[in-house]
Amino acid sequence: MSQVAYVNGAYLPLRRASVSVLDRGFQFADSIYEVWALRDGRLCDEAEHMARLRRSLRELRIGGTMTDAALRAVIGETIRRNRVHDGIVYLQISRGVAARDHFFPSPSVKPTMVVTAKNLDQKALTARAAAGVKVISLPETRWARRDIKSTNLLANVLARQTAREAGAFEAWFVDEEGYVTEGTTSNAWIVDANGVLRTRTLSHDLLHGVTRAALLQIARQLGCAIEERAFTIEEAQTGREAFISAASNPATPVIALDGRRIGDGRPGSLSRSLREAYLGMKSSQ
Amino acid sequence: MSQVAYVNGAYLPLRRASVSVLDRGFQFADSIYEVWALRDGRLCDEAEHMARLRRSLRELRIGGTMTDAALRAVIGETIRRNRVHDGIVYLQISRGVAARDHFFPSPSVKPTMVVTAKNLDQKALTARAAAGVKVISLPETRWARRDIKSTNLLANVLARQTAREAGAFEAWFVDEEGYVTEGTTSNAWIVDANGVLRTRTLSHDLLHGVTRAALLQIARQLGCAIEERAFTIEEAQTGREAFISAASNPATPVIALDGRRIGDGRPGSLSRSLREAYLGMKSSQ
Repeated sequence: MSQVAYVNGAYLPLRRASVSVLDRGFQFADSIYEVWALRDGRLCDEAEHMARLRRSLRELRIGGTMTDAALRAVIGETIRRNRVHDGIVYLQISRGVAARDHFFPSPSVKPTMVVTAKNLDQKALTARAAAGVKVISLPETRWARRDIKSTNLLANVLARQTAREAGAFEAWFVDEEGYVTEGTTSNAWIVDANGVLRTRTLSHDLLHGVTRAALLQIARQLGCAIEERAFTIEEAQTGREAFISAASNPATPVIALDGRRIGDGRPGSLSRSLREAYLGMKSSQ
Repeated sequence: MSQVAYVNGAYLPLRRASVSVLDRGFQFADSIYEVWALRDGRLCDEAEHMARLRRSLRELRIGGTMTDAALRAVIGETIRRNRVHDGIVYLQISRGVAARDHFFPSPSVKPTMVVTAKNLDQKALTARAAAGVKVISLPETRWARRDIKSTNLLANVLARQTAREAGAFEAWFVDEEGYVTEGTTSNAWIVDANGVLRTRTLSHDLLHGVTRAALLQIARQLGCAIEERAFTIEEAQTGREAFISAASNPATPVIALDGRRIGDGRPGSLSRSLREAYLGMKSSQ
Protein backbone atom coordinates (compact mmCIF):
# COMPACT_ATOMS: atom_id res chain seq x y z
CA MET A 1 0.00 0.00 0.00
CA SER A 2 1.40 3.43 -0.86
CA GLN A 3 1.74 5.87 2.00
CA VAL A 4 -0.19 9.11 2.28
CA ALA A 5 0.88 12.47 3.70
CA TYR A 6 -1.25 15.41 4.71
CA VAL A 7 0.25 18.70 3.42
CA ASN A 8 -1.57 22.00 3.94
CA GLY A 9 -5.08 20.73 3.41
CA ALA A 10 -4.47 17.91 0.94
CA TYR A 11 -3.86 14.18 1.34
CA LEU A 12 -1.20 13.16 -1.18
CA PRO A 13 0.83 10.08 -2.02
CA LEU A 14 3.88 10.39 0.24
CA ARG A 15 6.32 10.17 -2.65
CA ARG A 16 4.69 13.20 -4.30
CA ALA A 17 4.16 15.20 -1.09
CA SER A 18 6.35 18.28 -1.09
CA VAL A 19 7.01 21.71 0.35
CA SER A 20 8.38 24.81 -1.34
CA VAL A 21 12.14 25.24 -1.65
CA LEU A 22 11.45 28.55 0.13
CA ASP A 23 9.84 26.83 3.09
CA ARG A 24 11.46 28.14 6.27
CA GLY A 25 11.61 24.60 7.57
CA PHE A 26 13.92 23.72 4.67
CA GLN A 27 16.01 26.91 4.65
CA PHE A 28 16.28 27.75 8.36
CA ALA A 29 15.10 24.77 10.46
CA ASP A 30 12.39 27.24 11.45
CA SER A 31 9.86 24.56 12.36
CA ILE A 32 8.70 22.24 15.10
CA TYR A 33 7.48 18.68 15.15
CA GLU A 34 5.74 16.18 17.36
CA VAL A 35 5.54 12.40 17.39
CA TRP A 36 2.73 10.30 18.83
CA ALA A 37 2.97 6.57 19.34
CA LEU A 38 -0.06 4.59 18.23
CA ARG A 39 -0.66 1.31 20.05
CA ASP A 40 -3.57 -0.98 19.30
CA GLY A 41 -5.08 1.78 17.22
CA ARG A 42 -4.92 4.35 20.01
CA LEU A 43 -2.77 7.45 20.33
CA CYS A 44 -0.68 7.32 23.50
CA ASP A 45 -0.59 10.44 25.67
CA GLU A 46 -2.51 12.30 22.97
CA ALA A 47 -3.32 15.39 25.03
CA GLU A 48 0.18 15.67 26.48
CA HIS A 49 1.82 15.60 23.04
CA MET A 50 -0.72 18.17 21.83
CA ALA A 51 0.13 20.42 24.78
CA ARG A 52 3.84 20.14 24.00
CA LEU A 53 3.17 20.92 20.34
CA ARG A 54 1.36 24.10 21.40
CA ARG A 55 4.22 25.01 23.71
CA SER A 56 6.78 24.58 20.91
CA LEU A 57 4.69 26.80 18.62
CA ARG A 58 4.35 29.44 21.33
CA GLU A 59 8.08 29.44 22.06
CA LEU A 60 8.82 30.03 18.37
CA ARG A 61 5.85 32.39 17.99
CA ILE A 62 4.43 30.43 15.07
CA GLY A 63 0.78 31.41 14.84
CA GLY A 64 -2.08 30.74 12.47
CA THR A 65 -2.35 27.01 13.04
CA MET A 66 -5.65 25.13 13.15
CA THR A 67 -7.52 24.27 16.36
CA ASP A 68 -6.69 21.19 18.40
CA ALA A 69 -9.96 19.63 17.25
CA ALA A 70 -9.05 20.18 13.59
CA LEU A 71 -5.53 18.87 14.23
CA ARG A 72 -6.96 15.74 15.81
CA ALA A 73 -9.20 15.24 12.78
CA VAL A 74 -6.22 15.51 10.41
CA ILE A 75 -4.18 13.13 12.54
CA GLY A 76 -7.07 10.66 12.65
CA GLU A 77 -7.59 10.82 8.89
CA THR A 78 -3.86 10.40 8.22
CA ILE A 79 -3.82 7.33 10.45
CA ARG A 80 -6.88 5.94 8.68
CA ARG A 81 -5.53 6.50 5.17
CA ASN A 82 -2.23 4.87 6.09
CA ARG A 83 -3.98 2.02 7.93
CA VAL A 84 -1.74 2.44 10.94
CA HIS A 85 -2.54 0.32 13.99
CA ASP A 86 0.78 0.15 15.85
CA GLY A 87 3.24 2.81 14.86
CA ILE A 88 3.78 6.54 14.94
CA VAL A 89 2.25 9.77 13.73
CA TYR A 90 4.72 12.52 12.73
CA LEU A 91 3.53 16.11 12.56
CA GLN A 92 5.69 19.05 11.46
CA ILE A 93 4.76 22.72 11.34
CA SER A 94 7.07 25.36 9.86
CA ARG A 95 6.77 29.12 9.83
CA GLY A 96 5.76 28.85 6.16
CA VAL A 97 7.00 30.01 2.79
CA ALA A 98 8.64 33.39 2.21
CA ALA A 99 11.50 34.97 0.27
CA ARG A 100 14.63 33.95 2.17
CA ASP A 101 15.33 36.30 5.08
CA HIS A 102 16.18 35.44 8.67
CA PHE A 103 13.62 37.93 9.99
CA PHE A 104 10.14 36.50 10.57
CA PRO A 105 7.96 36.99 7.48
CA SER A 106 4.73 38.97 7.46
CA PRO A 107 2.10 37.56 9.85
CA SER A 108 -0.04 36.91 6.76
CA VAL A 109 2.30 34.05 5.82
CA LYS A 110 0.58 30.79 6.73
CA PRO A 111 2.48 28.02 8.49
CA THR A 112 3.20 24.81 6.59
CA MET A 113 1.81 21.64 8.13
CA VAL A 114 2.77 18.09 7.24
CA VAL A 115 1.42 14.91 8.86
CA THR A 116 2.58 11.38 8.12
CA ALA A 117 1.91 8.06 9.83
CA LYS A 118 3.40 4.63 9.57
CA ASN A 119 3.32 1.24 11.24
CA LEU A 120 6.43 0.20 13.15
CA ASP A 121 7.73 -3.32 13.47
CA GLN A 122 6.49 -4.04 17.00
CA LYS A 123 8.35 -7.34 17.16
CA ALA A 124 11.62 -5.52 16.46
CA LEU A 125 10.86 -2.94 19.17
CA THR A 126 10.03 -5.68 21.67
CA ALA A 127 13.17 -7.62 20.76
CA ARG A 128 15.26 -4.47 21.17
CA ALA A 129 13.83 -3.83 24.63
CA ALA A 130 14.39 -7.47 25.60
CA ALA A 131 18.02 -7.40 24.47
CA GLY A 132 18.81 -3.88 25.67
CA VAL A 133 20.80 -1.30 23.73
CA LYS A 134 24.30 0.13 23.81
CA VAL A 135 24.94 3.84 24.28
CA ILE A 136 28.00 6.02 23.83
CA SER A 137 28.61 9.46 25.30
CA LEU A 138 29.49 12.56 23.30
CA PRO A 139 30.01 16.22 24.21
CA GLU A 140 26.86 18.35 24.11
CA THR A 141 26.95 20.22 20.80
CA ARG A 142 23.33 21.28 20.32
CA TRP A 143 21.78 24.71 20.49
CA ALA A 144 20.57 26.16 23.77
CA ARG A 145 16.82 25.48 23.45
CA ARG A 146 16.50 21.72 23.44
CA ASP A 147 13.18 22.10 25.29
CA ILE A 148 11.61 23.26 22.01
CA LYS A 149 10.92 20.24 19.82
CA SER A 150 12.31 21.94 16.72
CA THR A 151 13.83 20.52 13.55
CA ASN A 152 17.15 22.24 14.38
CA LEU A 153 18.46 18.68 14.63
CA LEU A 154 21.76 18.54 12.78
CA ALA A 155 23.79 17.93 15.95
CA ASN A 156 21.41 15.09 16.86
CA VAL A 157 21.83 13.55 13.40
CA LEU A 158 25.63 13.66 13.55
CA ALA A 159 25.75 12.27 17.08
CA ARG A 160 23.37 9.44 16.34
CA GLN A 161 25.36 8.49 13.24
CA THR A 162 28.53 8.49 15.36
CA ALA A 163 26.75 6.15 17.78
CA ARG A 164 25.82 3.76 14.99
CA GLU A 165 29.37 3.70 13.69
CA ALA A 166 30.54 2.88 17.21
CA GLY A 167 28.13 -0.07 17.29
CA ALA A 168 25.64 1.70 19.58
CA PHE A 169 21.94 2.52 19.27
CA GLU A 170 21.99 5.92 20.93
CA ALA A 171 24.37 8.68 22.06
CA TRP A 172 24.05 10.58 25.33
CA PHE A 173 25.11 14.21 25.27
CA VAL A 174 27.29 15.31 28.19
CA ASP A 175 27.35 18.98 29.22
CA GLU A 176 30.45 20.99 30.12
CA GLU A 177 30.07 20.09 33.80
CA GLY A 178 30.13 16.39 32.95
CA TYR A 179 26.42 15.69 33.35
CA VAL A 180 24.28 13.83 30.86
CA THR A 181 21.62 16.04 29.29
CA GLU A 182 19.74 13.42 27.25
CA GLY A 183 20.04 11.21 24.18
CA THR A 184 19.77 12.30 20.55
CA THR A 185 16.20 10.98 20.34
CA SER A 186 15.36 10.03 23.92
CA ASN A 187 15.58 11.06 27.56
CA ALA A 188 18.21 9.35 29.72
CA TRP A 189 17.65 7.52 33.02
CA ILE A 190 19.61 5.49 35.54
CA VAL A 191 18.99 3.55 38.69
CA ASP A 192 22.05 4.66 40.62
CA ALA A 193 24.28 2.68 42.98
CA ASN A 194 21.90 3.51 45.84
CA GLY A 195 18.88 2.24 43.94
CA VAL A 196 17.51 5.72 43.25
CA LEU A 197 15.77 6.26 39.91
CA ARG A 198 17.31 9.39 38.39
CA THR A 199 16.66 11.56 35.34
CA ARG A 200 17.71 15.14 34.73
CA THR A 201 15.32 17.83 35.89
CA LEU A 202 13.50 19.86 33.23
CA SER A 203 15.10 23.02 31.82
CA HIS A 204 16.03 24.46 28.43
CA ASP A 205 18.78 21.79 28.31
CA LEU A 206 16.56 18.89 27.36
CA LEU A 207 13.29 17.90 25.77
CA HIS A 208 10.38 17.74 28.18
CA GLY A 209 9.62 14.14 27.32
CA VAL A 210 5.97 13.15 27.43
CA THR A 211 6.96 9.52 27.99
CA ARG A 212 9.45 10.72 30.63
CA ALA A 213 6.58 12.36 32.54
CA ALA A 214 4.39 9.27 32.23
CA LEU A 215 7.20 6.99 33.47
CA LEU A 216 7.87 9.27 36.44
CA GLN A 217 4.22 9.04 37.39
CA ILE A 218 4.29 5.26 37.17
CA ALA A 219 7.50 5.10 39.22
CA ARG A 220 5.87 7.20 41.92
CA GLN A 221 2.89 4.86 41.95
CA LEU A 222 5.28 1.91 42.30
CA GLY A 223 6.84 3.64 45.31
CA CYS A 224 10.30 4.02 43.74
CA ALA A 225 12.90 6.34 45.25
CA ILE A 226 13.15 9.08 42.62
CA GLU A 227 15.38 12.10 42.12
CA GLU A 228 15.08 14.47 39.20
CA ARG A 229 18.79 15.19 39.20
CA ALA A 230 21.46 15.02 36.50
CA PHE A 231 24.00 12.19 36.57
CA THR A 232 27.50 11.68 35.21
CA ILE A 233 28.70 8.95 32.88
CA GLU A 234 30.56 7.37 35.79
CA GLU A 235 27.43 7.33 37.94
CA ALA A 236 25.60 5.63 35.08
CA GLN A 237 28.39 3.08 34.58
CA THR A 238 28.54 2.21 38.28
CA GLY A 239 24.79 2.28 38.76
CA ARG A 240 22.41 -0.67 38.79
CA GLU A 241 20.44 0.06 35.62
CA ALA A 242 20.01 2.55 32.83
CA PHE A 243 17.38 3.09 30.20
CA ILE A 244 16.13 5.54 27.61
CA SER A 245 12.61 6.82 26.96
CA ALA A 246 10.83 8.19 23.91
CA ALA A 247 7.33 7.88 22.51
CA SER A 248 8.32 4.93 20.35
CA ASN A 249 10.86 3.51 22.82
CA PRO A 250 9.39 3.68 26.34
CA ALA A 251 11.89 2.53 28.98
CA THR A 252 14.26 0.68 26.66
CA PRO A 253 17.08 -0.75 28.78
CA VAL A 254 20.69 0.33 28.28
CA ILE A 255 23.13 -2.52 28.86
CA ALA A 256 26.44 -0.81 28.07
CA LEU A 257 27.72 2.76 28.12
CA ASP A 258 30.96 3.67 26.35
CA GLY A 259 31.79 -0.01 26.17
CA ARG A 260 31.34 -0.60 29.88
CA ARG A 261 28.67 -2.99 31.08
CA ILE A 262 25.89 -1.55 33.22
CA GLY A 263 24.83 -3.74 36.16
CA ASP A 264 25.16 -7.37 35.07
CA GLY A 265 24.99 -6.39 31.42
CA ARG A 266 21.36 -7.40 31.07
CA PRO A 267 18.18 -5.25 31.07
CA GLY A 268 17.46 -4.10 34.62
CA SER A 269 14.38 -5.16 36.53
CA LEU A 270 13.05 -1.66 37.21
CA SER A 271 13.51 -0.71 33.54
CA ARG A 272 11.49 -3.77 32.58
CA SER A 273 8.80 -3.11 35.18
CA LEU A 274 8.38 0.51 34.09
CA ARG A 275 8.15 -0.51 30.45
CA GLU A 276 5.57 -3.18 31.15
CA ALA A 277 3.55 -0.89 33.39
CA TYR A 278 3.63 1.89 30.77
CA LEU A 279 2.59 -0.39 27.91
CA GLY A 280 -0.03 -2.11 30.07
CA MET A 281 -1.48 1.21 31.15
CA LYS A 282 -1.58 2.55 27.58
CA SER A 283 -3.24 -0.56 26.19
CA SER A 284 -5.88 -0.62 28.93
CA GLN A 285 -6.83 3.04 28.64
CA MET B 1 9.45 38.40 -14.57
CA SER B 2 8.81 35.20 -12.63
CA GLN B 3 11.78 33.73 -10.81
CA VAL B 4 13.30 30.37 -11.62
CA ALA B 5 14.85 27.78 -9.33
CA TYR B 6 17.09 24.86 -10.17
CA VAL B 7 16.02 21.70 -8.31
CA ASN B 8 17.75 18.38 -8.94
CA GLY B 9 18.28 18.78 -12.66
CA ALA B 10 15.27 20.89 -13.59
CA TYR B 11 14.69 24.63 -13.92
CA LEU B 12 11.25 25.42 -12.49
CA PRO B 13 9.17 28.48 -11.72
CA LEU B 14 10.21 29.38 -8.17
CA ARG B 15 6.66 29.27 -6.86
CA ARG B 16 6.31 25.66 -8.04
CA ALA B 17 9.82 24.55 -7.03
CA SER B 18 9.64 22.03 -4.20
CA VAL B 19 11.37 19.32 -2.24
CA SER B 20 9.93 16.19 -0.65
CA VAL B 21 8.40 16.41 2.82
CA LEU B 22 10.89 13.63 3.60
CA ASP B 23 13.85 15.74 2.55
CA ARG B 24 16.42 15.66 5.33
CA GLY B 25 16.90 19.40 4.92
CA PHE B 26 13.26 19.87 5.92
CA GLN B 27 13.09 17.27 8.69
CA PHE B 28 16.55 17.53 10.28
CA ALA B 29 18.33 20.68 9.01
CA ASP B 30 20.68 18.09 7.50
CA SER B 31 21.90 20.39 4.74
CA ILE B 32 24.38 23.09 3.85
CA TYR B 33 24.18 26.25 1.81
CA GLU B 34 26.35 28.87 0.20
CA VAL B 35 25.73 32.42 -0.99
CA TRP B 36 27.64 34.25 -3.70
CA ALA B 37 27.31 37.96 -4.33
CA LEU B 38 27.00 38.96 -7.96
CA ARG B 39 28.26 42.44 -8.85
CA ASP B 40 28.18 43.84 -12.35
CA GLY B 41 27.32 40.38 -13.61
CA ARG B 42 30.34 38.77 -11.94
CA LEU B 43 30.43 36.30 -9.04
CA CYS B 44 32.57 37.66 -6.22
CA ASP B 45 35.11 35.33 -4.65
CA GLU B 46 33.68 32.48 -6.72
CA ALA B 47 36.42 29.96 -6.00
CA GLU B 48 36.57 30.76 -2.30
CA HIS B 49 32.84 30.20 -1.84
CA MET B 50 33.11 26.97 -3.83
CA ALA B 51 35.93 25.81 -1.57
CA ARG B 52 33.86 26.57 1.53
CA LEU B 53 30.88 24.71 0.03
CA ARG B 54 33.10 21.64 -0.46
CA ARG B 55 34.39 21.94 3.09
CA SER B 56 30.82 22.09 4.48
CA LEU B 57 29.90 18.98 2.48
CA ARG B 58 33.00 17.15 3.69
CA GLU B 59 32.35 18.05 7.31
CA LEU B 60 28.80 16.63 7.07
CA ARG B 61 29.96 13.73 4.86
CA ILE B 62 27.42 14.54 2.16
CA GLY B 63 28.69 12.87 -0.99
CA GLY B 64 27.43 12.32 -4.51
CA THR B 65 27.32 15.94 -5.59
CA MET B 66 28.23 17.14 -9.08
CA THR B 67 31.67 18.44 -10.05
CA ASP B 68 32.67 22.06 -9.53
CA ALA B 69 32.46 22.62 -13.29
CA ALA B 70 28.90 21.28 -13.40
CA LEU B 71 27.99 23.35 -10.33
CA ARG B 72 29.34 26.46 -12.01
CA ALA B 73 27.28 25.70 -15.10
CA VAL B 74 24.10 25.37 -13.01
CA ILE B 75 24.88 28.58 -11.13
CA GLY B 76 25.52 30.40 -14.40
CA GLU B 77 22.32 29.14 -15.97
CA THR B 78 20.28 30.06 -12.88
CA ILE B 79 21.74 33.57 -13.00
CA ARG B 80 20.94 33.83 -16.71
CA ARG B 81 17.36 32.61 -16.38
CA ASN B 82 16.71 35.03 -13.51
CA ARG B 83 18.45 37.91 -15.32
CA VAL B 84 20.53 38.71 -12.26
CA HIS B 85 23.20 41.37 -12.64
CA ASP B 86 23.69 42.66 -9.10
CA GLY B 87 22.40 40.35 -6.43
CA ILE B 88 23.00 36.95 -4.91
CA VAL B 89 23.03 33.29 -5.78
CA TYR B 90 21.77 30.89 -3.11
CA LEU B 91 22.72 27.22 -3.27
CA GLN B 92 21.52 24.56 -0.84
CA ILE B 93 22.42 20.88 -0.73
CA SER B 94 20.75 18.44 1.64
CA ARG B 95 21.54 14.81 2.37
CA GLY B 96 18.50 13.89 0.27
CA VAL B 97 15.18 12.13 0.71
CA ALA B 98 14.71 9.10 2.95
CA ALA B 99 12.24 7.62 5.42
CA ARG B 100 12.65 9.69 8.58
CA ASP B 101 15.51 8.37 10.72
CA HIS B 102 18.33 10.32 12.35
CA PHE B 103 20.93 7.85 11.07
CA PHE B 104 22.42 8.68 7.68
CA PRO B 105 20.46 6.99 4.89
CA SER B 106 21.96 4.48 2.45
CA PRO B 107 24.82 5.95 0.38
CA SER B 108 22.63 5.33 -2.68
CA VAL B 109 20.39 8.24 -1.59
CA LYS B 110 21.22 11.24 -3.78
CA PRO B 111 21.63 14.68 -2.25
CA THR B 112 19.02 17.33 -3.03
CA MET B 113 20.33 20.48 -4.70
CA VAL B 114 18.50 23.78 -5.04
CA VAL B 115 19.85 26.96 -6.64
CA THR B 116 18.09 30.33 -6.75
CA ALA B 117 19.28 33.79 -7.74
CA LYS B 118 17.84 37.26 -7.38
CA ASN B 119 18.76 40.89 -7.86
CA LEU B 120 19.22 42.97 -4.73
CA ASP B 121 18.39 46.62 -4.37
CA GLN B 122 21.93 48.03 -4.65
CA LYS B 123 20.79 51.54 -3.77
CA ALA B 124 19.34 50.24 -0.51
CA LEU B 125 22.57 48.39 0.29
CA THR B 126 24.63 51.49 -0.45
CA ALA B 127 22.32 53.66 1.63
CA ARG B 128 22.55 51.20 4.52
CA ALA B 129 26.34 51.28 4.40
CA ALA B 130 26.32 55.08 4.23
CA ALA B 131 24.02 55.37 7.24
CA GLY B 132 25.52 52.54 9.27
CA VAL B 133 23.53 49.96 11.20
CA LYS B 134 22.62 49.27 14.82
CA VAL B 135 23.52 46.03 16.54
CA ILE B 136 22.44 44.42 19.79
CA SER B 137 24.22 41.67 21.72
CA LEU B 138 22.66 38.38 22.76
CA PRO B 139 24.00 35.28 24.49
CA GLU B 140 25.43 32.64 22.16
CA THR B 141 22.72 29.99 21.75
CA ARG B 142 23.78 28.19 18.58
CA TRP B 143 25.13 24.69 18.14
CA ALA B 144 28.84 23.98 18.39
CA ARG B 145 29.75 23.83 14.67
CA ARG B 146 29.14 27.32 13.37
CA ASP B 147 32.09 26.81 10.98
CA ILE B 148 29.87 24.55 8.88
CA LYS B 149 27.54 26.68 6.76
CA SER B 150 24.54 24.50 7.57
CA THR B 151 20.82 25.28 7.65
CA ASN B 152 20.73 24.49 11.39
CA LEU B 153 19.82 28.18 11.71
CA LEU B 154 16.93 28.44 14.14
CA ALA B 155 18.99 30.25 16.79
CA ASN B 156 20.12 32.74 14.12
CA VAL B 157 16.52 33.34 13.06
CA LEU B 158 15.32 33.99 16.60
CA ALA B 159 18.24 36.28 17.40
CA ARG B 160 17.88 38.31 14.23
CA GLN B 161 14.15 38.74 14.87
CA THR B 162 14.97 39.91 18.41
CA ALA B 163 17.36 42.44 16.87
CA ARG B 164 14.69 43.77 14.54
CA GLU B 165 12.22 44.14 17.39
CA ALA B 166 14.89 46.09 19.29
CA GLY B 167 15.26 48.43 16.30
CA ALA B 168 18.56 46.90 15.20
CA PHE B 169 19.76 45.36 11.94
CA GLU B 170 21.90 42.59 13.40
CA ALA B 171 22.61 40.74 16.66
CA TRP B 172 26.07 39.77 17.84
CA PHE B 173 26.34 36.53 19.80
CA VAL B 174 28.45 36.68 22.95
CA ASP B 175 30.05 33.50 24.29
CA GLU B 176 30.17 32.43 27.95
CA GLU B 177 33.50 34.20 28.44
CA GLY B 178 32.00 37.48 27.27
CA TYR B 179 33.55 37.56 23.79
CA VAL B 180 31.68 38.25 20.58
CA THR B 181 31.61 35.21 18.28
CA GLU B 182 29.91 36.80 15.24
CA GLY B 183 26.57 38.09 14.01
CA THR B 184 23.55 36.04 12.96
CA THR B 185 24.37 36.56 9.28
CA SER B 186 27.77 38.27 9.32
CA ASN B 187 31.22 38.31 10.90
CA ALA B 188 31.94 41.01 13.50
CA TRP B 189 34.81 43.51 13.47
CA ILE B 190 36.03 46.48 15.48
CA VAL B 191 38.77 49.05 15.31
CA ASP B 192 39.66 49.07 19.00
CA ALA B 193 40.64 52.01 21.22
CA ASN B 194 44.26 51.55 20.11
CA GLY B 195 43.36 51.66 16.45
CA VAL B 196 43.87 47.93 15.91
CA LEU B 197 41.54 46.20 13.47
CA ARG B 198 40.20 43.12 15.27
CA THR B 199 38.05 40.15 14.35
CA ARG B 200 37.79 36.81 16.07
CA THR B 201 40.21 34.11 14.98
CA LEU B 202 38.82 31.13 13.05
CA SER B 203 37.57 28.07 14.94
CA HIS B 204 34.41 25.98 15.18
CA ASP B 205 32.82 28.98 16.93
CA LEU B 206 32.18 31.05 13.84
CA LEU B 207 31.69 30.95 10.10
CA HIS B 208 34.90 31.19 8.10
CA GLY B 209 33.71 34.21 6.18
CA VAL B 210 34.92 34.49 2.61
CA THR B 211 34.39 38.24 2.71
CA ARG B 212 36.14 38.30 6.10
CA ALA B 213 39.22 36.72 4.48
CA ALA B 214 39.14 39.17 1.56
CA LEU B 215 38.83 42.16 3.90
CA LEU B 216 41.74 40.92 6.02
CA GLN B 217 43.87 40.71 2.89
CA ILE B 218 42.92 44.25 1.88
CA ALA B 219 43.61 45.54 5.39
CA ARG B 220 47.07 43.98 5.27
CA GLN B 221 47.72 45.64 1.92
CA LEU B 222 46.62 48.97 3.44
CA GLY B 223 49.16 48.47 6.21
CA CYS B 224 46.58 48.31 9.02
CA ALA B 225 47.47 47.02 12.46
CA ILE B 226 45.49 43.77 12.64
CA GLU B 227 44.81 41.22 15.35
CA GLU B 228 42.69 38.14 14.83
CA ARG B 229 41.53 38.15 18.44
CA ALA B 230 38.07 38.10 20.01
CA PHE B 231 36.69 41.27 21.60
CA THR B 232 34.11 42.05 24.25
CA ILE B 233 31.02 44.22 23.94
CA GLU B 234 32.74 46.85 26.08
CA GLU B 235 35.81 46.88 23.84
CA ALA B 236 33.52 47.38 20.86
CA GLN B 237 31.58 50.17 22.58
CA THR B 238 34.74 51.99 23.57
CA GLY B 239 36.54 51.36 20.29
CA ARG B 240 36.86 53.71 17.34
CA GLU B 241 34.78 51.79 14.79
CA ALA B 242 32.84 48.61 14.25
CA PHE B 243 31.47 46.88 11.19
CA ILE B 244 30.01 43.63 9.92
CA SER B 245 30.90 41.59 6.86
CA ALA B 246 29.01 39.15 4.68
CA ALA B 247 28.94 38.41 0.95
CA SER B 248 26.04 40.80 0.42
CA ASN B 249 27.12 43.29 3.11
CA PRO B 250 30.90 43.80 2.87
CA ALA B 251 32.22 46.08 5.65
CA THR B 252 28.90 47.63 6.61
CA PRO B 253 29.56 50.09 9.45
CA VAL B 254 28.03 49.61 12.91
CA ILE B 255 27.16 52.93 14.55
CA ALA B 256 25.56 51.72 17.79
CA LEU B 257 25.84 48.61 19.94
CA ASP B 258 23.26 47.89 22.63
CA GLY B 259 22.07 51.47 22.33
CA ARG B 260 25.53 52.93 22.88
CA ARG B 261 27.12 55.02 20.16
CA ILE B 262 30.35 53.71 18.63
CA GLY B 263 33.02 56.37 17.94
CA ASP B 264 31.20 59.55 16.96
CA GLY B 265 28.09 57.62 15.98
CA ARG B 266 28.88 57.80 12.27
CA PRO B 267 30.41 55.17 9.96
CA GLY B 268 34.13 54.88 10.65
CA SER B 269 36.77 55.81 8.11
CA LEU B 270 38.54 52.44 8.03
CA SER B 271 35.20 50.65 7.62
CA ARG B 272 34.45 52.90 4.65
CA SER B 273 37.91 52.46 3.16
CA LEU B 274 37.74 48.69 3.42
CA ARG B 275 34.29 48.62 1.85
CA GLU B 276 35.35 50.84 -1.03
CA ALA B 277 38.55 48.90 -1.60
CA TYR B 278 36.65 45.60 -1.55
CA LEU B 279 33.96 46.76 -3.96
CA GLY B 280 36.55 48.48 -6.20
CA MET B 281 38.67 45.37 -6.31
CA LYS B 282 35.71 43.14 -7.11
CA SER B 283 34.44 45.39 -9.88
CA SER B 284 37.87 45.69 -11.49
CA GLN B 285 38.65 41.97 -11.47
